[in-house]
Amino acid sequence: MTEQMHHVALASRPDGAPTAENFRYEARPMPEPADGEVLVKVHYMSLDPYMRGRMDDADSYAKPVPVGGTMEGGAVGEVIASKSDRFKPGDFAFGMFGWASHGCLPANQLRKVNPAHGSITTSLGVLGMPGLTGWYGLTELGKPKAGETLVVAAATGPVGSMVGQIAKSRGLRVVGVAGGADKCKMAVETFGFDACLDHRAYATAKDLKAALKAECPDGIDIYFENVGGKVLAAVMPLMNNFGRIPICGMISWYNAGGLGAGAADADITGPNLWRTILVRFLSVNGFIISNHFDRMGDFLAEVGPKVASGEIAYVEDVAEGLENAPAAFMSMLKGGNMGKQIVKVA
Amino acid sequence: MTEQMHHVALASRPDGAPTAENFRYEARPMPEPADGEVLVKVHYMSLDPYMRGRMDDADSYAKPVPVGGTMEGGAVGEVIASKSDRFKPGDFAFGMFGWASHGCLPANQLRKVNPAHGSITTSLGVLGMPGLTGWYGLTELGKPKAGETLVVAAATGPVGSMVGQIAKSRGLRVVGVAGGADKCKMAVETFGFDACLDHRAYATAKDLKAALKAECPDGIDIYFENVGGKVLAAVMPLMNNFGRIPICGMISWYNAGGLGAGAADADITGPNLWRTILVRFLSVNGFIISNHFDRMGDFLAEVGPKVASGEIAYVEDVAEGLENAPAAFMSMLKGGNMGKQIVKVA
Repeated sequence: MTEQMHHVALASRPDGAPTAENFRYEARPMPEPADGEVLVKVHYMSLDPYMRGRMDDADSYAKPVPVGGTMEGGAVGEVIASKSDRFKPGDFAFGMFGWASHGCLPANQLRKVNPAHGSITTSLGVLGMPGLTGWYGLTELGKPKAGETLVVAAATGPVGSMVGQIAKSRGLRVVGVAGGADKCKMAVETFGFDACLDHRAYATAKDLKAALKAECPDGIDIYFENVGGKVLAAVMPLMNNFGRIPICGMISWYNAGGLGAGAADADITGPNLWRTILVRFLSVNGFIISNHFDRMGDFLAEVGPKVASGEIAYVEDVAEGLENAPAAFMSMLKGGNMGKQIVKVA
Repeated sequence: MTEQMHHVALASRPDGAPTAENFRYEARPMPEPADGEVLVKVHYMSLDPYMRGRMDDADSYAKPVPVGGTMEGGAVGEVIASKSDRFKPGDFAFGMFGWASHGCLPANQLRKVNPAHGSITTSLGVLGMPGLTGWYGLTELGKPKAGETLVVAAATGPVGSMVGQIAKSRGLRVVGVAGGADKCKMAVETFGFDACLDHRAYATAKDLKAALKAECPDGIDIYFENVGGKVLAAVMPLMNNFGRIPICGMISWYNAGGLGAGAADADITGPNLWRTILVRFLSVNGFIISNHFDRMGDFLAEVGPKVASGEIAYVEDVAEGLENAPAAFMSMLKGGNMGKQIVKVA
């Protein structure tokens, strides 16, 4: 078979922030589905911060992408060939097809997406892995209670906006942190946050802490950790007794091999961080959503109707063309996106 | 009333390790019980690492001892006067009498101790606050499962020895860390640990990590944190996915204002510590046992008979005389005690 598809390969491992040279857009032969497999033509693919971690050859919860291999990622598209009873051509499916124009996977690794229920792009964000991350982390590890105060950074991202909206619906005060006035406006006006602080407006963690303190007069009960760095350093001294910190990511540190912004702040260096966990009786829980995909059904049952009704809002930022995925990804890591970053592949 | 008692007052706040000048042994008038109160002649008092924290004027879960005030602490003794129906002269009671020869407290703040059930000193250690700390932290936050591996430092102390013995009884591999060959021998021979490492024999966290790795071939599932510093730095890289870290203290850091041994180790500075919590899906929980005294009844019901039968061992190190409490306390902070440190007051 001489038909071709395209993918973006990891050309080399980045040293710090990824550059264009770390990626290679190239053609390769179109796969053919084996028994039980399904071939999908990708319409939209997802860009997520975790992908930065996969580019490093470091100890983590997932294997790194090999040099020369397809960049990892979720995508949604139309079935164009199927050797499974579960899918037929014309069906839509979400799967980990990677940064690619087409993907071929066993049917049991795919999730059917019904375009009648709304845009298929929602399977990448608000009703996909990021939304599930926010919902699971908040409800299972954050244990929100009405009247409490929650802080979440990357407030307009697909995780942060889910966290904030679910927390609001449960009666919490919700304060976001985001990069730039536009994002802060979006957090309040589109996602209903009580307040949102622009971390770029505060030179130090100390300044950000003072501003957070003013917005959180009763302290912070839940800090949903998805960025690390300066925000973490600002939040830690404001945590209330019995506070909860679910940790799903640390985007601010991904590009610096573990030593990014705020790393030297006294409030989060080892002893002080550890001491705060002890003296405030905090519960700090790392999690990765792939260990909890069994909750996807519960999540979609609760949140799906709220997205359909508009009760839960979502914002997508769509880049055009698979060949532009690396640029969109590099921009996203610097906060250049407004809402969930997606690439329109076809 | 001209009758006198004695107490040890906080003469001044220490800068680093406490010295004799920080304490003052002095006489003061004997209190007289008001309605509902009980006057106790102290026989034994407890010395515990948390008392070091009370000497600082720092943000913590408890108010600091005021300069000039009685050093805080638990003690057990005989009722010599009572204006409560619940106690009569000759009864024995545990209470927070401080470092003092006598104490006067409301009856509802006292716990009756039955000398027929064993030495009254057990109310200070194995069947008191330290034992409850170990039992609660391990069972509620450590969530031990047979076949797992647990590490605990200060292995021969009253907390560590309880943690290790309960974990052994539930089928875990138990590896202790202690200071000195004598303590390591005691951990294995008296408390039944599978192994115990002398942290003094390892110059760096890296060396200690290598030794721990050899004793924990399947990694570490539970690290019961009560020391911080070098042990923490050695343990973190060995934690298994879904590991649990209950934190009840950090004695190695108490004397250095939060920047003690091991503080600069890369494995426990902010980003790396945070990253390990995320990528290994750890659950890190700070707790202080005074929030969980409602579990004392459950604890005594389960562990009391095991202490009486000898199934759970305990070791006490008894200093003589209230006036010698400061010296015994300073020695304990440096690891000079073998087992639970107690002072025989009368």
